[in-house]
Amino acid sequence: MSSLMLSRVAVCGGTHGNEMSGIYLVKELLKARKKVMEDEEEKPVSVMLVLSNPRAVQQCRRYIDTDLNRCFTHATLSGPMSDTTPYEIIRSRELNTMLGPKGSPGAVDLVCDLHNTTANMGLCLISYSDCDWICLQMPDVPLRYIHFDVSNKESYSLDSVGKHGFAMEIGPQPHGVVRSNVYTAMKAGVQHMLDWVSFFNSGTVFFCFATRFVDVFTMVKRFDYPRDSETHDITAAVHPQLQDRDFCLLHPEDPLFQTFSGETLRYKGKEPLYPFFINECAYYEKVQMIIVAYYNMAFKVHS
Amino acid sequence: MSSLMLSRVAVCGGTHGNEMSGIYLVKELLKARKKVMEDEEEKPVSVMLVLSNPRAVQQCRRYIDTDLNRCFTHATLSGPMSDTTPYEIIRSRELNTMLGPKGSPGAVDLVCDLHNTTANMGLCLISYSDCDWICLQMPDVPLRYIHFDVSNKESYSLDSVGKHGFAMEIGPQPHGVVRSNVYTAMKAGVQHMLDWVSFFNSGTVFFCFATRFVDVFTMVKRFDYPRDSETHDITAAVHPQLQDRDFCLLHPEDPLFQTFSGETLRYKGKEPLYPFFINECAYYEKVQMIIVAYYNMAFKVHS
Repeated sequence: MSSLMLSRVAVCGGTHGNEMSGIYLVKELLKARKKVMEDEEEKPVSVMLVLSNPRAVQQCRRYIDTDLNRCFTHATLSGPMSDTTPYEIIRSRELNTMLGPKGSPGAVDLVCDLHNTTANMGLCLISYSDCDWICLQMPDVPLRYIHFDVSNKESYSLDSVGKHGFAMEIGPQPHGVVRSNVYTAMKAGVQHMLDWVSFFNSGTVFFCFATRFVDVFTMVKRFDYPRDSETHDITAAVHPQLQDRDFCLLHPEDPLFQTFSGETLRYKGKEPLYPFFINECAYYEKVQMIIVAYYNMAFKVHS
Repeated sequence: MSSLMLSRVAVCGGTHGNEMSGIYLVKELLKARKKVMEDEEEKPVSVMLVLSNPRAVQQCRRYIDTDLNRCFTHATLSGPMSDTTPYEIIRSRELNTMLGPKGSPGAVDLVCDLHNTTANMGLCLISYSDCDWICLQMPDVPLRYIHFDVSNKESYSLDSVGKHGFAMEIGPQPHGVVRSNVYTAMKAGVQHMLDWVSFFNSGTVFFCFATRFVDVFTMVKRFDYPRDSETHDITAAVHPQLQDRDFCLLHPEDPLFQTFSGETLRYKGKEPLYPFFINECAYYEKVQMIIVAYYNMAFKVHS
């Protein structure tokens, strides 16, 4: 493994067309690249800059027909196509051709997909692997690492198309808005990742691994909002005592929701959990999830 | 004027279909009303509860074809109609029939239109009149009052359809999200307004007016984002030192924007201003405005 080079990296923004930091960052990097085009061929790492869902970006919506970041399962990528195939499914195949094909030797080495959330989550890396030494060793800036425990076949997000990949998720930022501090944090995060790739390729990274630890959160439970049984409208909001407290321990009987008539609903589980994606905008419609609660575990970096 | 009764009041939510506090509040009030329907006829004040733009609410978008809250000028309300008339123009006429007609004796006495903003504006009342004693006397909770200085003929928002009217604007709340604290503040604000209407109608309000003052902000200037001359994309975000500082004095040479390449752009005007609607999501597309800066004036309440 130590002979591996990360020679092809993709940085993607606008996979969700209303998550603005990544969109403006990719556009800015494209503009900067245009200026220094003549230097490009000398670089040992090829960085592809991708605006993933240009139609949704143009309309400043999460997606046009369906969530692009759920379209990268093997089943969806290889399913039948017709005149009525949703735009994002067509686009997922274009991206799979450009960055993959998923699971093939031709896929790019690393996909970094830029996202924002309305939740107060700071800077998080989200990946399907909790033993992918490339992703785990990357950060030496304060951040959290979130692990989605599904197989590569079932993995559904754009970053699963590369040989390695992760989503860089930063919040809080309202969708449709860019906050300068969030944009700047993302810019620094991407620069850090690219610097790390250069270090890695030069072979100078390995000596310090044995003592590095990373906090990893693995999903154990999802909560939905209380909903009206007829209309399916939510009937409560995240409780003010829980709002903005992502990654803070939620204990049994702690407030979870406040109904629109003012009643407090409490967490009835028996185990304490670390909630996150608290009040993420996109999860209102996903019916089955709103707060995703995880265990925290200190994780020794593999070397 | 003292013999006036405010016997017909309208509380409207969802004029913008992604401003969630007002939407859930109107739905909650409708639900509560259903439960106590039998008491309804005894009340001296008729409160109409209106979901202004149901299609946009259903899609959780600001609007379908065009901004409903710009459709209530006399010109738009009386313009020609055809098969291609935008949905919101059709809907504005329905609302004008229901709550107006604007400028007529048949119009409701007071329209309270509920809005949210991504800006850190707290609770604001926005109205076209700075000498409308009904609106100005209402608050005895901490809030700010914003005055749009245009004639009734040019006034374009839903609240202009009533004999009196104002928008209740609360933030910060991301569009598409409901924050419990913002919802609760709005619920208290509406209850306060309805209590005030009852007091007013009972004739017990007037004795305390002479000593009341209200801070009023009147528009003097609008700023647009710096934009790319070809694409019209914004090229800078609100500066981190200005972000969230609505109603805080902006001095000449204070930072205004930070470009996506990191440069600080400063306020070049000669007069200090009180900016607000700082980084309001909806103003990215409106090209000509983003930060609306106002003078503050202490305002003696008319009696």
